[in-house]
Amino acid sequence: MNTASAVPPIPVPAARSRPEAARRLTESARTVPSLAEFEQTLMGTREHVRTLTETVPLDRLNGWHYDEDTGFIAHESGRFFSVEGLQVETQGPSAAWGQPIINQPETGILGFLAKEIDGILHFLMQLKAEPGNRNGLQLSPTVQATRSNYTGTHGGLRVPYLEFFQDPARRRVIADVRQSEQGSRFLRKRNRNMIVETKEPVEARDGFVWLTLGQLHHLLATEDLVNMSTRSVLACLPLGDGAPSAEDEGFGTALARSLAPGGPELHPLVNVLSWITEARTRAEMRARTVPLDALADWEFTGGRIRHRAGQHFDVIGVRVEAVGREVGRWSQPMVRGQATELAALLVTRVRGVLHVLMQLRAEPGLTDIAELAPTVQCTPDYCAQLPTEERPLFLDLMQNARAADIRFDTALSDEGGRFYHTGSRHLVVETGWLPEPPQFRWLTLGQLEELTQHSHYLNMQARSVLACLRSLFTEAPDEHNQR
Amino acid sequence: MNTASAVPPIPVPAARSRPEAARRLTESARTVPSLAEFEQTLMGTREHVRTLTETVPLDRLNGWHYDEDTGFIAHESGRFFSVEGLQVETQGPSAAWGQPIINQPETGILGFLAKEIDGILHFLMQLKAEPGNRNGLQLSPTVQATRSNYTGTHGGLRVPYLEFFQDPARRRVIADVRQSEQGSRFLRKRNRNMIVETKEPVEARDGFVWLTLGQLHHLLATEDLVNMSTRSVLACLPLGDGAPSAEDEGFGTALARSLAPGGPELHPLVNVLSWITEARTRAEMRARTVPLDALADWEFTGGRIRHRAGQHFDVIGVRVEAVGREVGRWSQPMVRGQATELAALLVTRVRGVLHVLMQLRAEPGLTDIAELAPTVQCTPDYCAQLPTEERPLFLDLMQNARAADIRFDTALSDEGGRFYHTGSRHLVVETGWLPEPPQFRWLTLGQLEELTQHSHYLNMQARSVLACLRSLFTEAPDEHNQR
Repeated sequence: MNTASAVPPIPVPAARSRPEAARRLTESARTVPSLAEFEQTLMGTREHVRTLTETVPLDRLNGWHYDEDTGFIAHESGRFFSVEGLQVETQGPSAAWGQPIINQPETGILGFLAKEIDGILHFLMQLKAEPGNRNGLQLSPTVQATRSNYTGTHGGLRVPYLEFFQDPARRRVIADVRQSEQGSRFLRKRNRNMIVETKEPVEARDGFVWLTLGQLHHLLATEDLVNMSTRSVLACLPLGDGAPSAEDEGFGTALARSLAPGGPELHPLVNVLSWITEARTRAEMRARTVPLDALADWEFTGGRIRHRAGQHFDVIGVRVEAVGREVGRWSQPMVRGQATELAALLVTRVRGVLHVLMQLRAEPGLTDIAELAPTVQCTPDYCAQLPTEERPLFLDLMQNARAADIRFDTALSDEGGRFYHTGSRHLVVETGWLPEPPQFRWLTLGQLEELTQHSHYLNMQARSVLACLRSLFTEAPDEHNQR
Repeated sequence: MNTASAVPPIPVPAARSRPEAARRLTESARTVPSLAEFEQTLMGTREHVRTLTETVPLDRLNGWHYDEDTGFIAHESGRFFSVEGLQVETQGPSAAWGQPIINQPETGILGFLAKEIDGILHFLMQLKAEPGNRNGLQLSPTVQATRSNYTGTHGGLRVPYLEFFQDPARRRVIADVRQSEQGSRFLRKRNRNMIVETKEPVEARDGFVWLTLGQLHHLLATEDLVNMSTRSVLACLPLGDGAPSAEDEGFGTALARSLAPGGPELHPLVNVLSWITEARTRAEMRARTVPLDALADWEFTGGRIRHRAGQHFDVIGVRVEAVGREVGRWSQPMVRGQATELAALLVTRVRGVLHVLMQLRAEPGLTDIAELAPTVQCTPDYCAQLPTEERPLFLDLMQNARAADIRFDTALSDEGGRFYHTGSRHLVVETGWLPEPPQFRWLTLGQLEELTQHSHYLNMQARSVLACLRSLFTEAPDEHNQR
């Protein structure tokens, strides 16, 4: 027993990480250098980083097969992912249904490498061409890699900058948390959302760019540019130092107050946690995997798996040829949405503090039953056909919002490694006070940030549209003082 | 769209719940009225609340059967719980094993009803005779009920005081979080740990007593008195107001500093969360249920299921006759441990702040792979036979601790509804500084309290022995200033 070892230095209370990290991120969010150079890099990279994606019948997909024993579509190596059937039983109007679902048990890394340049935190972003992107390149985290990627199952090149995320204890960690992927498409899939800061010199390789948080926030308003993984990680950053830039009663001030932790809030966090505990205790959603051909409402036809009524999504096959990516050629199944989805937030000011109306929503693929979702999360083309009483709450309000109440409205893509030309309208609408239905709560952005430090609280769609709302913290120069 | 509704009042920042709840609980922990009246009630209750438990062969258990299709032992109603086989694959020295495990998918309630009496928070505790208790009565939460209990599957009496926990939004919630049960005995079982305060008049029924937190803390030092569920809930209470009662450099002062949130700590919380994320991402423990008769190392013999080498535990059958409990007579399987287990914490003072050495430990029944466990969690009788290099780290140090370094040492029972005469030695030992092995971290009690607000961070054994360590916040009158 060696009691003679030196006790390591203990940081003084002022060095606790949240306030300092938030201060530096807030500074980065308020810094918006010209994006002209970025636009040039984007155009230049488009010329030599490309994927050529061609749909092919699922049953003629190189390396993939329908396993007669399990009834799943799997890769011959047993790695990557499989497409399985899921039978779901629950309560309520749609009491039971079957659907295909992606099972990918490994946890991938979505990592931002951060570094101070001229005293301001910058993030190394990758211009990445994923096979499902409808517009070629999108802005991706520094590292966006499945375990198969980085352990070499792809047989591809080494993932650049991976070493910064493999020994985080040696770096300064800003956030590191496993977050769920879409619970209606993936079975208990989680990715590791990481932001790691380095003080070492780092060269931006070809196809990588350093951006401030303010620049990233501006780019979020561009259609299909900031990819889903980037939005997920952005939502995990601490932001807001409690000092609104202006003392007016504008939207930006209410947003800044909402981001600051410990501010006035409608519900103390312990009550929010109790509400979540109550709902998870009561929820009775049960899901079990079944063979794909046991799904009554789905059929294999025309080389794809589709819903018999043409709803929801198809599972298709694609053959990919890539330039400037890890591997030159491969084939894989993908999910193709039947229509653009909606991820929409209602926000309101309560005593000058912005509150967001979050919905607690059970999804069959979630690890812990239910997570916080946007106010409205649905496929409007499908839901519009439902009788009024079955339509999602607040959908009509969102779709009929006056232009003056819309704070954010941009179509953004789902992850292009699994989703083919599929995306969601990301919408933020401000309203006056509305009472909360039982499955909804008005929460501050500070409370939501506290919850994103932990797994299983905010679903993918919630993180995605929250990143959009939080981007308004960076005011557009021409809109300054106008909101 | 009704925007005219009144906005509810928003609490001012000072009313945030943690500091106020902690202040009132700290006051309750420092209040220790005489326990003479309690001792009398305990003796009096022993005379009319009893269970008579008799072991019977598992295959002759009324209402239970071995299901040939599944290979599980289940109740004829399909409710309560089942005993299943579990096949576990992992890395490391014990790379694969099989074992019986209890599957009880419903979430029960472990609830403390709190109320101010003469300005001090008191808790309504139940003197409860569970069939597995070796000493009859133990101190149980106000409500300790499975869903079967309170939805009437038992066909028994209504659970007293249940109404206070069924609509928590109407009460003042101090804590409300689902926590795991033992991950090596239960398959993804969680109970809802609740502390709810009422201002309504509440009569203590026969067999119930009002106790301060200080009284509960003193009673923890009594062998087999405070039951496992009570210890679990106690660990979820916010405690410590940052004002140590003395300014000396004694153990009590270091403990009080450790309980205060935001105090100096060896590792910022973000680094602790990153370490947990890293371990959960890397862990490759896979478990699947199998028929009981497929477990190679287990046999059904003598009316029970036992490990062929006589290790670990038996699954036995019991017939219970109860007086003063919900149902008069029933039969059920139970788990009987082969030896007393050890739940032991090493603590040290770092710059005057107590730190606890926690271990991150994967268990096959846990919902999220790994949780924080005590420094040592094992069956010493079994582990003592292992060669030195395979013995759990710190076991020898714990077992050879000098009396002067032992801060807590009491044998306490496992939950008497599922475990038959089974318990653990709860041990807290103080040491000088020791470096952390990779799977261990020195954490403050404030950090551990922050984590217990959420599910899946602290395992049952950790919460149980932490409740014991935290009980030392209430100083024994005769030991005051001596620690």
